[in-house]
Amino acid sequence: MARIEKVLIGQSGGPTAVINASLAGAVRSARALGAPVLGMAHGIEGLLHDEVVDLDVAVPDDRSLDVLRSTPGSYLGSCRYKLPSPEEAPAVYDALLGTLDRLGVGVVAYIGGNDSMDTIDKLGRYGEAAGSAIRFMGVPKTIDNDLVAQDHTPGYGSAAKFVATCVSELACDASVYPVKSVLVVETMGRDVGWLGAASSLAWTAGSRGPDIVLVPEAPVSLDAFLDKVSNLLAVQDFVMVAVSEGARGLDGQPLYAEEGAREDAFGHAASQAGVGGFLARLVSERLGCKARGVELSTLQRCAAHVVSGRDREEAEALGALAVRVGLEGRSRGMSCLARVSDLPYEVRLGVTDVSAVANEVRQLPGSWIANDGMGVTAEFERYARPLVEGTDTCRWVDGVPWHLRTPFGETVAL
Amino acid sequence: MARIEKVLIGQSGGPTAVINASLAGAVRSARALGAPVLGMAHGIEGLLHDEVVDLDVAVPDDRSLDVLRSTPGSYLGSCRYKLPSPEEAPAVYDALLGTLDRLGVGVVAYIGGNDSMDTIDKLGRYGEAAGSAIRFMGVPKTIDNDLVAQDHTPGYGSAAKFVATCVSELACDASVYPVKSVLVVETMGRDVGWLGAASSLAWTAGSRGPDIVLVPEAPVSLDAFLDKVSNLLAVQDFVMVAVSEGARGLDGQPLYAEEGAREDAFGHAASQAGVGGFLARLVSERLGCKARGVELSTLQRCAAHVVSGRDREEAEALGALAVRVGLEGRSRGMSCLARVSDLPYEVRLGVTDVSAVANEVRQLPGSWIANDGMGVTAEFERYARPLVEGTDTCRWVDGVPWHLRTPFGETVAL
Repeated sequence: MARIEKVLIGQSGGPTAVINASLAGAVRSARALGAPVLGMAHGIEGLLHDEVVDLDVAVPDDRSLDVLRSTPGSYLGSCRYKLPSPEEAPAVYDALLGTLDRLGVGVVAYIGGNDSMDTIDKLGRYGEAAGSAIRFMGVPKTIDNDLVAQDHTPGYGSAAKFVATCVSELACDASVYPVKSVLVVETMGRDVGWLGAASSLAWTAGSRGPDIVLVPEAPVSLDAFLDKVSNLLAVQDFVMVAVSEGARGLDGQPLYAEEGAREDAFGHAASQAGVGGFLARLVSERLGCKARGVELSTLQRCAAHVVSGRDREEAEALGALAVRVGLEGRSRGMSCLARVSDLPYEVRLGVTDVSAVANEVRQLPGSWIANDGMGVTAEFERYARPLVEGTDTCRWVDGVPWHLRTPFGETVAL
Repeated sequence: MARIEKVLIGQSGGPTAVINASLAGAVRSARALGAPVLGMAHGIEGLLHDEVVDLDVAVPDDRSLDVLRSTPGSYLGSCRYKLPSPEEAPAVYDALLGTLDRLGVGVVAYIGGNDSMDTIDKLGRYGEAAGSAIRFMGVPKTIDNDLVAQDHTPGYGSAAKFVATCVSELACDASVYPVKSVLVVETMGRDVGWLGAASSLAWTAGSRGPDIVLVPEAPVSLDAFLDKVSNLLAVQDFVMVAVSEGARGLDGQPLYAEEGAREDAFGHAASQAGVGGFLARLVSERLGCKARGVELSTLQRCAAHVVSGRDREEAEALGALAVRVGLEGRSRGMSCLARVSDLPYEVRLGVTDVSAVANEVRQLPGSWIANDGMGVTAEFERYARPLVEGTDTCRWVDGVPWHLRTPFGETVAL
């Protein structure tokens, strides 16, 4: 009798609003193919401590999978564990492969960003060299949209939609008084400007977006920034600025560190308040007008009450695909999306080598940034608009979201 | 031929996510009774400068009223103008009444908080003494829920729902790593704890709320707070704290000012970062665990993409009622809600005297605060749960909210 292979799923890195849609898709796919499904509690780090959850018990049916699909956070927990190289620590690899063998795992599906793909790549190579038949597959996720070798990453569309939605609402809220004022909205994005740029999607015939967008890829001088704000204030009462948390000055340092500001108390307070608060205070002091900073916070990656319907569907499909091709024999691959056309929007699902994705970072293309470095072009909108389309929400009970509780404390005996 | 009286509507103070639902209700009510409808641009302050909008042009039909209903911010703009007393400045009153007469206004409906009700009261009394037939009516709005003489205020339910929703999502997001950690979520509420308390509504069978709730009505010592956090961390990995921006120490000062912290750089940075950031840093330094602060920001009052359906309906009904009773002859009244029963939820719409509301502040009842001053009781939930029930959203176009643009620049020639 052929042994039935199990599927083991893990989640790693920062959560997204749809990371559990990928998990739900992976579970459904495994079930459709008759494979029992286990979950790592807290990713590879948990696996090292034998923390494994029986997902056929924790998420037994379509009803619980539907709730899981719209639950934010990483249902299986997460880790930031960096796998050492096989040369440094072969014992770690042997331990992991031994655990997988004991569990009867045939396919490992790891939902994560570029660090996670590096983990998958290393484990896969080590296993192959050791003669293991276990396949290691990756499922992409990151709100930062910084993975190479694909059109976009699940998690980005929903975060982008949340950013653009909040920006359009804050614009209504902040412009009600008949005074000159500036609102600075800070988005996530330490190294890349994809989420900062998404703020520009708030511009439609029926809503208002930012006048200025600052991203890490386009360093600016504070003087040029203040000049632009000042020129705008000369012709309009309300000016809105969107800034990525990692926006940089001409010296490549964080914007609030430019011009020696880092050294004094002002700079110190700024680093506490973030770049949005810093720019608001700078505008207020230098231009003498009312200014306020708003940080959109980690809600950008967990506001599952309002996600891109398209993003959630794609996240689920990519989770399902990785498990299916893994069960079919593929290893060291990552499911991903390729754009076929912008309008009408069409993508093709495929599988790429994890080694092409591991440890690489994709920045916002320079040609999509405005000439003055303080905005994005129509090319960006053509790319990003389809990603925020469709609106999906969560399950509501008693007026608040209903989430699936994490299954910790119900780990499998090994 | 009897002169057709016009209705003039204004909005004042900080916006709410449903303040324009009250405006839409007021417009519909006037139209149903055959009255032309005008709007003050930027409240009473705009009226002093003859800034009046023809709402029958700007919002001509049900289609535009439906968009208005889910547009955040104050569609008519707002002001923070404090009307002087009639003794100080009778000329201001004479000017306002003269403008209203010239416009042919029979009813003024002013949507605002307790300051606005004071404005309505003063104008109404002055007009009556001067023999004017113009009626002045108030429509309540405030996310703070601090108006007396009524069960609750439109705007609160939606802000409370947003707070509880975000708290439940942030709890999922912030608890994914297997480490001891504390999340401090800061809500609005400088003088009252209604919004801070609303965070507790995140506790349901399917979602997780805060372990500690700090409100301005219950001053605490930082030592007692740290003790409680420390005790919780001894038995669980993740601790969540919700704090009203105006939470106070035992000396009645802002919490971050307690124990002399205000005097040093730490205290200074704290006042920049807000009480949430301050408490997170304090926990991190004193208890040596990971801690993060999240400020929910002005999104609490403008996130029209997710509101309490009940709140939006009540806001609309109260706008409509004020105009109707004004056209019937009532003056110096404010439409309001009285609770008939909690379960099933039932309210009665009525009209109270604005003088009962003006300048008063309603705090969270002491009996609804836990004995240790760091939580709320089941009585609070019984009161507040019905206010967040029902979920309504906005109109979505191109993946982002579609709002009605403010009508400024189209003011009426006087």
